[in-house]
Amino acid sequence: VTGSRTVAGTAPIGVFDSGLGGLTVARAVADALPHEDIVYLGDTARVPYGTRSASTVVRYARSCAAALRARDVKMLVVACNTVSAVALDMLRVELDMPVLGVIEPGARAGVAACHGVGRLGVIATAGTVASGAYERAVAGVDSRVEVVARAAPLLVPLVEEGWVTGDVPRLAARRYLAELAEARVGALVLGCTHYPLLAGILEEELASLAARAIPVVDSAHATAAELAATLEERGLATTGRGEGRLQLLVTDLPGRFADVASRFLGRDVAGLGVEQIDL
Amino acid sequence: VTGSRTVAGTAPIGVFDSGLGGLTVARAVADALPHEDIVYLGDTARVPYGTRSASTVVRYARSCAAALRARDVKMLVVACNTVSAVALDMLRVELDMPVLGVIEPGARAGVAACHGVGRLGVIATAGTVASGAYERAVAGVDSRVEVVARAAPLLVPLVEEGWVTGDVPRLAARRYLAELAEARVGALVLGCTHYPLLAGILEEELASLAARAIPVVDSAHATAAELAATLEERGLATTGRGEGRLQLLVTDLPGRFADVASRFLGRDVAGLGVEQIDL
Repeated sequence: VTGSRTVAGTAPIGVFDSGLGGLTVARAVADALPHEDIVYLGDTARVPYGTRSASTVVRYARSCAAALRARDVKMLVVACNTVSAVALDMLRVELDMPVLGVIEPGARAGVAACHGVGRLGVIATAGTVASGAYERAVAGVDSRVEVVARAAPLLVPLVEEGWVTGDVPRLAARRYLAELAEARVGALVLGCTHYPLLAGILEEELASLAARAIPVVDSAHATAAELAATLEERGLATTGRGEGRLQLLVTDLPGRFADVASRFLGRDVAGLGVEQIDL
Repeated sequence: VTGSRTVAGTAPIGVFDSGLGGLTVARAVADALPHEDIVYLGDTARVPYGTRSASTVVRYARSCAAALRARDVKMLVVACNTVSAVALDMLRVELDMPVLGVIEPGARAGVAACHGVGRLGVIATAGTVASGAYERAVAGVDSRVEVVARAAPLLVPLVEEGWVTGDVPRLAARRYLAELAEARVGALVLGCTHYPLLAGILEEELASLAARAIPVVDSAHATAAELAATLEERGLATTGRGEGRLQLLVTDLPGRFADVASRFLGRDVAGLGVEQIDL
């Protein structure tokens, strides 16, 4: 996937994730940059990546990046915490375009939201927590800030089931957040693309456990903001004035695809072009 | 994977599943047939199958079966509801050995447990429910029995997280079982290999919702009982007298493998041989 080339500012932004959760990042990008075209690739045939070995994740990430590069994207957003933790350096070396993950923007926004408190809470999948990626990213921003990370594996299936209100997600949130509240974190980073759909409940339960409001940072928004800055810096922002298009690529069409995708994207995907590709 | 051959009664029984959940079936088999050797294959690199297309599931099932046949198993148990729903006929045609799924034994045991009530409840993954496999299997046993099937997707991640007691699984169980209790089912089939770990909670909540005890049928036990009968009928039961060995094959070694596998198997897997293979 190497070789030099020139892309126009009107070229699309490529976004990929192991599944459909990264559509929360595509949504934040579309909100922040409404004139940009976006090609989103969800590797739904091989989801989830979080339970795969590092070498398998690297191989999968490489094939996703190559498929998006073949669509002439001008920049790549890795909307997957597992890939961001394991394969970002490799993609940056191999690809002739800017590559942005979700962990570094989330870590920077989280440290900023701490307002001097020396502890930053992170919830993520077991794989992301075990990788230590947030600790490394936060150390690169402010080495005095300690990361308190907690795996919250059930939140992903809760969101996929659509149980984002009511007792079950609330009790699960309380159980996962108890030790972060006890650790007196200054802010909480949502280190998984699924969690923004539970942001309200997580914020309320954390405040209730800690008996004070604690800022909750959504990496999707932080990533979209850094993406906008990078495009501007590199002269890659679109010169088009119309509304950007969103194209969806998937490697398998799972049952309830339209329901689940619409939930993450925050709007109906029925009208969007969906293309199934092989990787 | 065709071709004729002879296998001894001392050959192992092959059991496979998309992941580690099928170890509940391996456990039931080991309990029912303590002298038999078992080779268990968990396709952990490609789990879950439930979200894949039928053609992909068939392809994966074929490769799992071939790997176990290469280990000279005398019989194949498909401890995966998705494969049992989609690929069992194909495996029976292609393989020169008896093949047993989990759906038919579960359906037969469920109908028997109904004791004349005309409705059988089934909970399973979304893929299994959508396949209509339990309806077909029950129709083959007693066409007067109506199946009331409900997808209960959250129960799998609850079990994998180890949340098998307490408020969260209890509330989730209540939510999934409410319409089955209202439908006045005569028995409930646990149509997913993960659910036996929640059998107690499911039984209690169903009884509480229905205001009477309703039998809960675990397909793993039903499958082990039919397996024992098939081996006996075909003269394939072992003639060995020692304790059978259990060998574990996996296609990827996920984090917390030993914890999760031990939970499903009901005993420590640390002492067992675990081999990683490519498919």
